[in-house]
Amino acid sequence: QLELSLSGSSESLSKFDLDSKKSCVLITGASRGIGRAIAQEFAKSVAAESFFILIARSFKDLEEVKQALMKIANISVSTLVLDLSKPEDFNFEAIVNNILTSENQTKDSFEQVIIVHNAGSIGNISKRAAEMDSNDEIQAYFKLNLLSVILLNSAFLKVFSKFDSYNIIVINVSSLCGVQPFKSFSMYCSGKASRDMFFKVLALEEPNINVLNYAPGPVETDMVANIVENTWDESLANANTTMRENGTILAPETTAKRLVKILDDRKYSSGDHVDYFDDI
Amino acid sequence: QLELSLSGSSESLSKFDLDSKKSCVLITGASRGIGRAIAQEFAKSVAAESFFILIARSFKDLEEVKQALMKIANISVSTLVLDLSKPEDFNFEAIVNNILTSENQTKDSFEQVIIVHNAGSIGNISKRAAEMDSNDEIQAYFKLNLLSVILLNSAFLKVFSKFDSYNIIVINVSSLCGVQPFKSFSMYCSGKASRDMFFKVLALEEPNINVLNYAPGPVETDMVANIVENTWDESLANANTTMRENGTILAPETTAKRLVKILDDRKYSSGDHVDYFDDI
Repeated sequence: QLELSLSGSSESLSKFDLDSKKSCVLITGASRGIGRAIAQEFAKSVAAESFFILIARSFKDLEEVKQALMKIANISVSTLVLDLSKPEDFNFEAIVNNILTSENQTKDSFEQVIIVHNAGSIGNISKRAAEMDSNDEIQAYFKLNLLSVILLNSAFLKVFSKFDSYNIIVINVSSLCGVQPFKSFSMYCSGKASRDMFFKVLALEEPNINVLNYAPGPVETDMVANIVENTWDESLANANTTMRENGTILAPETTAKRLVKILDDRKYSSGDHVDYFDDI
Repeated sequence: QLELSLSGSSESLSKFDLDSKKSCVLITGASRGIGRAIAQEFAKSVAAESFFILIARSFKDLEEVKQALMKIANISVSTLVLDLSKPEDFNFEAIVNNILTSENQTKDSFEQVIIVHNAGSIGNISKRAAEMDSNDEIQAYFKLNLLSVILLNSAFLKVFSKFDSYNIIVINVSSLCGVQPFKSFSMYCSGKASRDMFFKVLALEEPNINVLNYAPGPVETDMVANIVENTWDESLANANTTMRENGTILAPETTAKRLVKILDDRKYSSGDHVDYFDDI
């Protein structure tokens, strides 16, 4: 097993190894777009009898994804309808434990556990940063895009708390907006920046966990339609429209395949922010 | 008046000009440490009849700072006891307007308005990122360190909404932790990262506002004592203890003077993260 050095550390980065290790994979926002595509690409290469937990708000969409996944491979799939904008309503640790129990999945049977923090929202892009004056709006944004992520993450790690016996991989679906400001995106940019940094701290604290902040590039999702319709920044709307028209916007499958490649190649250090377009 | 180009933009950065412009200066966390030192350094160089609004939780400490400031210069000072960890309780715009009215300060009399977002907390540094499992704790952290900042900022800008007639300067007291992860600082690092990015978006959206993310370096404050006492990362505690023992930790006045120098020299672009040690 190839082991890369973490920068500034002699610890080894745990191996991403979909092919040969029986995995438990939890994905949020799994019913559509990038989350759905990641579920599908992971299912294609995962070891037999791996177990997927798919979280989203729509039962119908989740069931569709489940059926699609189970045609791809010999895996088990559980779906979980949760509104992650209300993290205070949930005991995530109990939820994950319950799903494992009810599906007769034994924790010890897994060799690798993977959590993909993909769910997220763009925030109110009709307002400038200087106009952000609603406590409820900002609070709701960070509940979905940061608090639920931190809480689900700690719950997942607590459930699989034998850090030394599993490959543990934590993937944060980030964005270029996490490292570069964009007009009308004050919530999205600051939310993604906080998530990236949170996972950088996690990576630093837990050398046995493989942490990746992945910026998926410009992907054709409902979010892009929302941007074109609602941003007050015309140049941003035009840029997105142009990308859609000339076909330079990415398909969800394209960026999901790239994510698998980046994980397989493992040329990043744990905690790095890696963009779709990065030459690694 | 010297005008610098913003990177990638032909807009001009508004001039920081304490000496010659009558200013309204609002500072949070002004009763102690860095906030208090910034108030004192600004008072030393500010134009006559400038008006300071000092916000903190302790009435007694604020009154001490007020008395000290009024000995330094011919300025007016109002103190405001506010617990910024409960932004939902306040209408910041009404609060700022009321204070101006009750102190007979006419908005139009100011030539420059400055807000210094200094209040902040370190968060629970006894827990690792992987152990952050309390919704209430995380929510409380972001209410104080992000939400109240965004809401007070928009309120202040709305009060002084003639963006074209004032010099407007927005200073975010950031940290090295906003750009670099540290063990045991998952809240502090992610909070500072989100604040930096929020103000980068503000700078991009509002070319007439002079925005600075200032990282004050390691400063001798109550926060350092807290770190030494409570972090689970011994090397961090030791590093802080060593700095205090060998005197390389900065006095609050030292970093406040450096901030004034950076503002005066104005070699940064609006929205930049500038560290005490940066060679600019």
